[in-house]
Amino acid sequence: MNAIVMRGPGGPEVLELREVARPAPGPGEVRVRVASSGLNRADLSQRLGRYPAPPGSPQDILGLELAGTVDAVGAGVRGLREGDPVMGILGGGGYAEYAVSPAETLVRTPTGMPLSVAGAIPEVFMTAYDAAFLQEGLTAGEILLVHAVGSGVGTAAVQLARRAGVHVIGTSRTADKLARAGELGLEHGVLADERWPERVLELTGGRGVDVILDLVGGAYLAGNQRVVAERGRHIVVGVPAGAEAPLSLRALMGRRASIRGTVLRARPVAEKAVVARAFERDVLAGFDAGELVPVIDRVYPASAVAEAHRRMESNESFGKILLEW
Amino acid sequence: MNAIVMRGPGGPEVLELREVARPAPGPGEVRVRVASSGLNRADLSQRLGRYPAPPGSPQDILGLELAGTVDAVGAGVRGLREGDPVMGILGGGGYAEYAVSPAETLVRTPTGMPLSVAGAIPEVFMTAYDAAFLQEGLTAGEILLVHAVGSGVGTAAVQLARRAGVHVIGTSRTADKLARAGELGLEHGVLADERWPERVLELTGGRGVDVILDLVGGAYLAGNQRVVAERGRHIVVGVPAGAEAPLSLRALMGRRASIRGTVLRARPVAEKAVVARAFERDVLAGFDAGELVPVIDRVYPASAVAEAHRRMESNESFGKILLEW
Repeated sequence: MNAIVMRGPGGPEVLELREVARPAPGPGEVRVRVASSGLNRADLSQRLGRYPAPPGSPQDILGLELAGTVDAVGAGVRGLREGDPVMGILGGGGYAEYAVSPAETLVRTPTGMPLSVAGAIPEVFMTAYDAAFLQEGLTAGEILLVHAVGSGVGTAAVQLARRAGVHVIGTSRTADKLARAGELGLEHGVLADERWPERVLELTGGRGVDVILDLVGGAYLAGNQRVVAERGRHIVVGVPAGAEAPLSLRALMGRRASIRGTVLRARPVAEKAVVARAFERDVLAGFDAGELVPVIDRVYPASAVAEAHRRMESNESFGKILLEW
Repeated sequence: MNAIVMRGPGGPEVLELREVARPAPGPGEVRVRVASSGLNRADLSQRLGRYPAPPGSPQDILGLELAGTVDAVGAGVRGLREGDPVMGILGGGGYAEYAVSPAETLVRTPTGMPLSVAGAIPEVFMTAYDAAFLQEGLTAGEILLVHAVGSGVGTAAVQLARRAGVHVIGTSRTADKLARAGELGLEHGVLADERWPERVLELTGGRGVDVILDLVGGAYLAGNQRVVAERGRHIVVGVPAGAEAPLSLRALMGRRASIRGTVLRARPVAEKAVVARAFERDVLAGFDAGELVPVIDRVYPASAVAEAHRRMESNESFGKILLEW
């Protein structure tokens, strides 16, 4: 089969389309004929050699998500058959014509959605749903703050929150991304300059926000501690702006607030399966009904993967970048 | 009535025994004839002018907990009558012959326990129980790490954890306090020198601890981030060692760990009542059965309050310091 193989750590040029052996599904696994694979920021880190794949995942083939059709079924798999359209998150190996996945972490694709597009859904929608709703218990009437709201996870969070009756404030460094997030249902866009905490406090009448979905990290921590409401929950999903920051333990106590870190990729399959089932139950109907849409920046043929990576590195993308097989 | 009145911010000498008007219970409140009032570190901060009482509490009479008998009942109170023995936490005003409390935050005193001793129970046992069990869901078989294990909350946590089938590791800066905590059921005492994180990792086979009950704060944060287990929960109850410290957001993500701050005093009455009812249901039987005991350092007559404060400031106390009325 064709796959994008990483020659070694480096720039986009280390990724090359090459023929490799087609993987076989083990017990409990299925092989998927990939239609589309989404890019993620973690792919850039992995390509640079800073984020190795977890044990058991291909080390030299990037790709954390896919959509496609079941192509072969391993021993003991129930509920999936050859030809079924599926999508899901992976430990790695998604940049390929065929990829193997545990059956239980896959979900059905939304009704009527082309597989060439569905690859934009799993990572960002599952991450946002798991972090804000499953882990932090975000509920109707609460206020959610999303940093980097123009990102894949950010645009997914805006849609999920709006569908759940949650008020959303989003930050971005560019007014254009805020405007585009507004079209997806973002109520209040705030430019991420040094005044953003004041703006968030103004917008909430000084009360602050119930949940912070933090895709930025770093120096935003001080502001996050200022704007978190009493008993507010701050969940850290990504730290492109920095992995360390001063924490005020006193402010944390005064607000009775919490800060939690999360990752999806490194979780045991059984835990990912719990997320997949909850997602299927609570979220998929939103796509079927057109209340949720994958936000797609650009679709590249798999052979143009280097160009796709450069697009992601430019920070100019809005929504997901996809590879089509 | 007699009460300890704070003349203004300052040393122990600003506390004086003086005659003041006896307070009257409002609707939903009772007046308690105080038998004993426990000292808390927060009293020292309040005396120094750094921690004002919350609105609605006496500003010039310290005291966050008491035990005594119901002396007068306000309108609308159900379930409490004159003469009932009670104990509880307060927003303030506990250093007095009589104190007013919302009826619903009081609990019965343990069977057979003298009221002169029961004043050592509410703040430390409710704080430890609320933080580790109600908020962090500590359960049998898990590992709890308690910093400042010789403190009032620390010794309460050790006993509560042991009774619940939880493994406990405690740190203290003195070997003597570790030995005394051992008599209360502490499994592993660790001296709080710079090697404590290594020791905790050794004791847990590298796995780390499920819950950290942090009564210290400050520079311990780096060590806490090293020893917290996957999905571990760190709850900050006090920060005598420092209110700010560098946080590794990356480590928080890698462990999928959380850090939460908590305070009891500033909570709305309705929330304190929830803690009181859970405490009555889950914890009081442990005192009745002798599985839990108040740990008392010294009992002072109320007139010796300045001496009692000096004792607490010395950091030499083990367990609670009480004023007797």
